[in-house]
Amino acid sequence: MDASIYIPRADLVRFVANVFMRLGLSPEEGSASAEILVAADARGIESHGVGRLWRYKNGLQKGIMSGAVEPTVIRETPLSLVLDANGAMGLSLSKKTMSRIIEKARVVGAAFSSVRNSNHFGIAGYYTEMAAREDMIGICMTNTAALGVPTFGRTAMFGTNPIAISVPAHRGRMFTLDMATTVVTRGKIEVYEREGKPLPPGWAVDTKGRGTTNAHQLLDDMLYQRGGGIMPLGGEGELFSGYKGYGLAEVVDIMTAVLSGGAFGKSVMDSKATSARVCHFFGAIRLDLFRDPEEIKSDMDRLLDELEHAEPAEGCERVYYAGLKEHEAEARAAREGVPLSAKVAEQLKAISEELGVPFPAAV
Amino acid sequence: MDASIYIPRADLVRFVANVFMRLGLSPEEGSASAEILVAADARGIESHGVGRLWRYKNGLQKGIMSGAVEPTVIRETPLSLVLDANGAMGLSLSKKTMSRIIEKARVVGAAFSSVRNSNHFGIAGYYTEMAAREDMIGICMTNTAALGVPTFGRTAMFGTNPIAISVPAHRGRMFTLDMATTVVTRGKIEVYEREGKPLPPGWAVDTKGRGTTNAHQLLDDMLYQRGGGIMPLGGEGELFSGYKGYGLAEVVDIMTAVLSGGAFGKSVMDSKATSARVCHFFGAIRLDLFRDPEEIKSDMDRLLDELEHAEPAEGCERVYYAGLKEHEAEARAAREGVPLSAKVAEQLKAISEELGVPFPAAV
Repeated sequence: MDASIYIPRADLVRFVANVFMRLGLSPEEGSASAEILVAADARGIESHGVGRLWRYKNGLQKGIMSGAVEPTVIRETPLSLVLDANGAMGLSLSKKTMSRIIEKARVVGAAFSSVRNSNHFGIAGYYTEMAAREDMIGICMTNTAALGVPTFGRTAMFGTNPIAISVPAHRGRMFTLDMATTVVTRGKIEVYEREGKPLPPGWAVDTKGRGTTNAHQLLDDMLYQRGGGIMPLGGEGELFSGYKGYGLAEVVDIMTAVLSGGAFGKSVMDSKATSARVCHFFGAIRLDLFRDPEEIKSDMDRLLDELEHAEPAEGCERVYYAGLKEHEAEARAAREGVPLSAKVAEQLKAISEELGVPFPAAV
Repeated sequence: MDASIYIPRADLVRFVANVFMRLGLSPEEGSASAEILVAADARGIESHGVGRLWRYKNGLQKGIMSGAVEPTVIRETPLSLVLDANGAMGLSLSKKTMSRIIEKARVVGAAFSSVRNSNHFGIAGYYTEMAAREDMIGICMTNTAALGVPTFGRTAMFGTNPIAISVPAHRGRMFTLDMATTVVTRGKIEVYEREGKPLPPGWAVDTKGRGTTNAHQLLDDMLYQRGGGIMPLGGEGELFSGYKGYGLAEVVDIMTAVLSGGAFGKSVMDSKATSARVCHFFGAIRLDLFRDPEEIKSDMDRLLDELEHAEPAEGCERVYYAGLKEHEAEARAAREGVPLSAKVAEQLKAISEELGVPFPAAV
């Protein structure tokens, strides 16, 4: 991303929280939601950051999502919690739910939550890292609006359905995998469309299930639900094992929606105004179920060191482990401010004017 | 596979069990191990079936693995069990461990096991289906000898590291994802070498980390650990999201080896005679932590029906869900016998002669 301005993280969080409160969220909901959105930008995941604020604004203004909604408890045991979110704010609800799961795991060793009828919750890795900071393995998934086509199929039957897992090493270092189970997300297709470039073969199929490189046609067909869509991780057919990504996407639908009794598969749809009523899954498993957490974290350090110092391929600079790039970006943002693109800065300033919430000064 | 003969499943299990007992396993170990190996062939996964019997024979004869070895309990809680397998038979040990985890989950709701210093355990999906038959979500992973190269790297840092998950529907139907986290396994590369075909670009890199299509050179470089290896699911570089498969492979190393204190990464190596001292992970989570299991299984049926009846791509016959092909093969094997290739049949007959264990009659 070409950042146009950099905003101190705390100031950006305060601004976004004020926007949310102006839209009817409580201070607790507003600041939790703001913190999670800004965390995405700080980590360089601008697709899930404050660039989505206008969508939440739409959702809240139109009543498709709302603040101060109490979720309904469908089932609760010492190690589980199943909620109907009743269309609550996905961000703050998810933070609260992960906190409750961590508390349960602290008592019994492990705990899990499946949540239906929620809304977009930002980056899954935010929640898994909450658990990792408590010496637990954090797990998080969410289903999303259908846009992924199963192996040998031609119509969208699952979402980008991300899976995240965090495991701590020492001194705050951690492994955080946070990945969509489709080969790419819709945002990547949109970039190729804007730049007028053909899609790499293997990313998508057309309405007949044949490989396509036409980004514009694909997005149009997806919008009007004529068929076609994005491939699961592993691509088209069997040659690169696309059925594995497809299987993982289904695991996410099962853990989030089938367990909670929510909507799954092609019935998960965004409206024009906002995101779908999606379903989440949260899990926390205490490290000390297995060994002394200090020993596990030392072995984690050894594993991460080995990966970070693995010899790079000719022409490549370095090898990463999952989460390393994002944590480096976050450290940079702490020094230099959170980077925002010109487009996002403009959107935020428009929201600032519309709602009368002062926009913070750049670094 | 071109099957040359078909053997009634029970007869094949009895033969393999007798071989194992002749090699020093107890009747319980022998029949459990035989059952798991034959299950792979019945499901059409011949790479993990009785074609591996000679390897177990080698391992047992050379004392690299052994029967009647008691694992050491490293840590045990109501919902966890950490074992040092001390080189026990991976197959029977894994069945026993999954049974214990299911018993624990029956009492407390969920349970997990991490096991170090074990041996090849066959198909991961065998163990997850044990849990699914008890109205639980079954989870299983194992690490394997290093042959996978991380994104931007040039040396093998992880194994094919499979992940399996089963979730039950009604009447014995279930979803079973059982997938290596590399784009393909070594067996696939060997097929291309035998047929003298170039590898599809994106499957492997050479000793400098550059994409290679030379199967023979790759296998040679891997054998002598000169570098190079197989790509994670998602292929080379970032274009098809190979870092996701790489991240999943690391999750497996963490859950199996880091949690248990076993060997991970490049230090997991096969010897010439047999497979490496690998590490496993088993998990079982009761469905009724979330909702009435009957309701969940009804929703599972709905999900699996929707996928099975999704419109196929032009030129494709049908859409599958994870496990469907294998369960159809298993039903076929129940009617027609378990299919064996000419090569495997020959191997088994040689073992039959060497050990004086009668080989069963074909169907």
